[in-house]
Amino acid sequence: MPVPSARAMPVLSRVVGALPATVPFVPPEALERRADRSLTLRLGANESAFGPSARAIAALADAAPRVSWYGDPEGFELRHALAGHHGVAADAIVLGSGIDELLGLIVRAHMNPGDTAVMSAGAYPTFAYHVIGYGGVLERPAYGTAGDTAHYHNDWQALADAAHRTAARLVYLSNPDNPTGSWLDGDAVLALLDALPPGTLLVLDEAYAEFAPAEALPILAADDPRVIRLRTFSKAHGLAGLRVGYAIGAVPLIATFDKIRNHFGMTRLALAAALASLGDVDHVAGVVEAVAAGRRELAALAAHHGLDALPSATNFVAMDLGDSTRAKAVLAALLEREGVFIRTPGVAPLDRLIRVTVGTPPERTAFAEAFGRVLETV
Amino acid sequence: MPVPSARAMPVLSRVVGALPATVPFVPPEALERRADRSLTLRLGANESAFGPSARAIAALADAAPRVSWYGDPEGFELRHALAGHHGVAADAIVLGSGIDELLGLIVRAHMNPGDTAVMSAGAYPTFAYHVIGYGGVLERPAYGTAGDTAHYHNDWQALADAAHRTAARLVYLSNPDNPTGSWLDGDAVLALLDALPPGTLLVLDEAYAEFAPAEALPILAADDPRVIRLRTFSKAHGLAGLRVGYAIGAVPLIATFDKIRNHFGMTRLALAAALASLGDVDHVAGVVEAVAAGRRELAALAAHHGLDALPSATNFVAMDLGDSTRAKAVLAALLEREGVFIRTPGVAPLDRLIRVTVGTPPERTAFAEAFGRVLETV
Repeated sequence: MPVPSARAMPVLSRVVGALPATVPFVPPEALERRADRSLTLRLGANESAFGPSARAIAALADAAPRVSWYGDPEGFELRHALAGHHGVAADAIVLGSGIDELLGLIVRAHMNPGDTAVMSAGAYPTFAYHVIGYGGVLERPAYGTAGDTAHYHNDWQALADAAHRTAARLVYLSNPDNPTGSWLDGDAVLALLDALPPGTLLVLDEAYAEFAPAEALPILAADDPRVIRLRTFSKAHGLAGLRVGYAIGAVPLIATFDKIRNHFGMTRLALAAALASLGDVDHVAGVVEAVAAGRRELAALAAHHGLDALPSATNFVAMDLGDSTRAKAVLAALLEREGVFIRTPGVAPLDRLIRVTVGTPPERTAFAEAFGRVLETV
Repeated sequence: MPVPSARAMPVLSRVVGALPATVPFVPPEALERRADRSLTLRLGANESAFGPSARAIAALADAAPRVSWYGDPEGFELRHALAGHHGVAADAIVLGSGIDELLGLIVRAHMNPGDTAVMSAGAYPTFAYHVIGYGGVLERPAYGTAGDTAHYHNDWQALADAAHRTAARLVYLSNPDNPTGSWLDGDAVLALLDALPPGTLLVLDEAYAEFAPAEALPILAADDPRVIRLRTFSKAHGLAGLRVGYAIGAVPLIATFDKIRNHFGMTRLALAAALASLGDVDHVAGVVEAVAAGRRELAALAAHHGLDALPSATNFVAMDLGDSTRAKAVLAALLEREGVFIRTPGVAPLDRLIRVTVGTPPERTAFAEAFGRVLETV
């Protein structure tokens, strides 16, 4: 990094000064700018193809003229509505600018530089980004597989073993899982919880909870201090662009966030739209049903091409291309020839998969056509 | 803090485990909830009474249907527009969820636990919140005064002296200043910069820049690594509820943010509205003019009651109530009897002031009436 003048550069902290230059994800907009063309299909970020609730749109319009006012930093109305929705106290909920921000706060609150966090190798990169960013160390056991397929799933026993081996402060589990779409039954999550060392916190990322079968969501005691659950309005609610995530946990755990969070960080519009969307249960139910239909269609598409699709409890389907070279080639051809944005996990052995977000029926038709053309030559 | 079950609480980091429970500001919504009544006038948070640009409102409506998509984490369009506006490279600008988030990132990037930051005693509490939150130590020289008045202003020499005395990593200066409304000439800011120890970073918070005389804004070399400037859409642009702040600095300084920031933290709507508002120079100019008229009116109101109003280069006016007991009593009476929300600085000797945001003409009339009634009895 060149020093632009003879004047002294300011001193960085020990932790930040040692960080590499990394970005968790290259966004679709950057792909468009690099290629100097628009994408035809945006199916790589697991955004909802079915859009926001009409009630959320109306709430945005209603709130817009007062956008000169800060939003309520206590998020009182939304937290109380969520408390009713989940059957917990409002003080058991904290809001954040998406699960991403909350993950950063959890790492900050619980890890000293040099402490360890555990996650499956290839799981959500943003958690790893925060752990590294706060000077932590990652321990990454492999995903388990089912037989000789690429049906990867989080191996709860391996996660627990790694936590004991490393005296981990945090164990991260996304359930349903991103990027595989797989899920553990709630009983397995509870078994993981019981197998953790005392004082280790389970960070249970349930971003895709609405798409999951009920048995995938463990029933947890409201005062259980061993786990913090994360939910979002970015997926089933179709409000990714408004950044509304929340954590649910024991009241003393949640109280810690108030000591370090960016209190005025949520936008007034996000609070209003999320509240409206929470009340629109029909919208979410419709999205979940439409996504389930889309998953079946994507699985059939994979089968049509002789590919294995992983069972999914999310709004995307991972397809097994057999090896990472072919997966990368298909990804590149889809982007470059067809303008189709999807993603592939960055870490072996998951990088033999491609991850396709469920689109609308016309988007699925367009994807099937583009995918077919690409597979003919790759 | 009671342990809610026999299960072990997770371990907090050394820094966060030692933090007190604090909140930088009590929001007006919490005051309303405590009193179980609505405020009649919201003049305590320096929000723009003149609202957002019509172009920003239109941009929000245009962007709403696509709010299911994440915003561009690179903020490409807005950063490039800001680069043109300020005559710097786009890579010299980083966006954040308000200046508040950027202050946290700056502290995180530059301070180890135990390192010192310097700010005037009574200056912006959120900077102090972040310094404490990352385990830093605050050195707080007193504001200077002009003669025997309460015309407090940042004392640049005292800030520089404190930085040398404590080997400070950061020196925070808001110019124009909050909560006093005072300002230093750009030459004084440059003198401060030249007087700092090598490697100390000046955090120059220019949230109120649009309201300031041109000579208050120093001309800085784009590659000067000793200073980072902070600007916001929350004040003159009237977009506080959308959380758009940005930092301008030497490219290597700005590059550090990408290693630690919440890349997908900004909302899609905020990016769209800020871009539209940046293009509406007439709106901002109109707000600045209207605010100047309002400041004159508030100064005249103070004089009418025999009070001294501090000269202001912001969208608020601080009035001197002579002592903190009277200031607190007036603040309380305004809130309890009149439903009027203003603030008073929390730290002596500034706590003899009350800080009144410039409202619209009808709001100013209503404030003058309420203030008059309160002063009759307090």
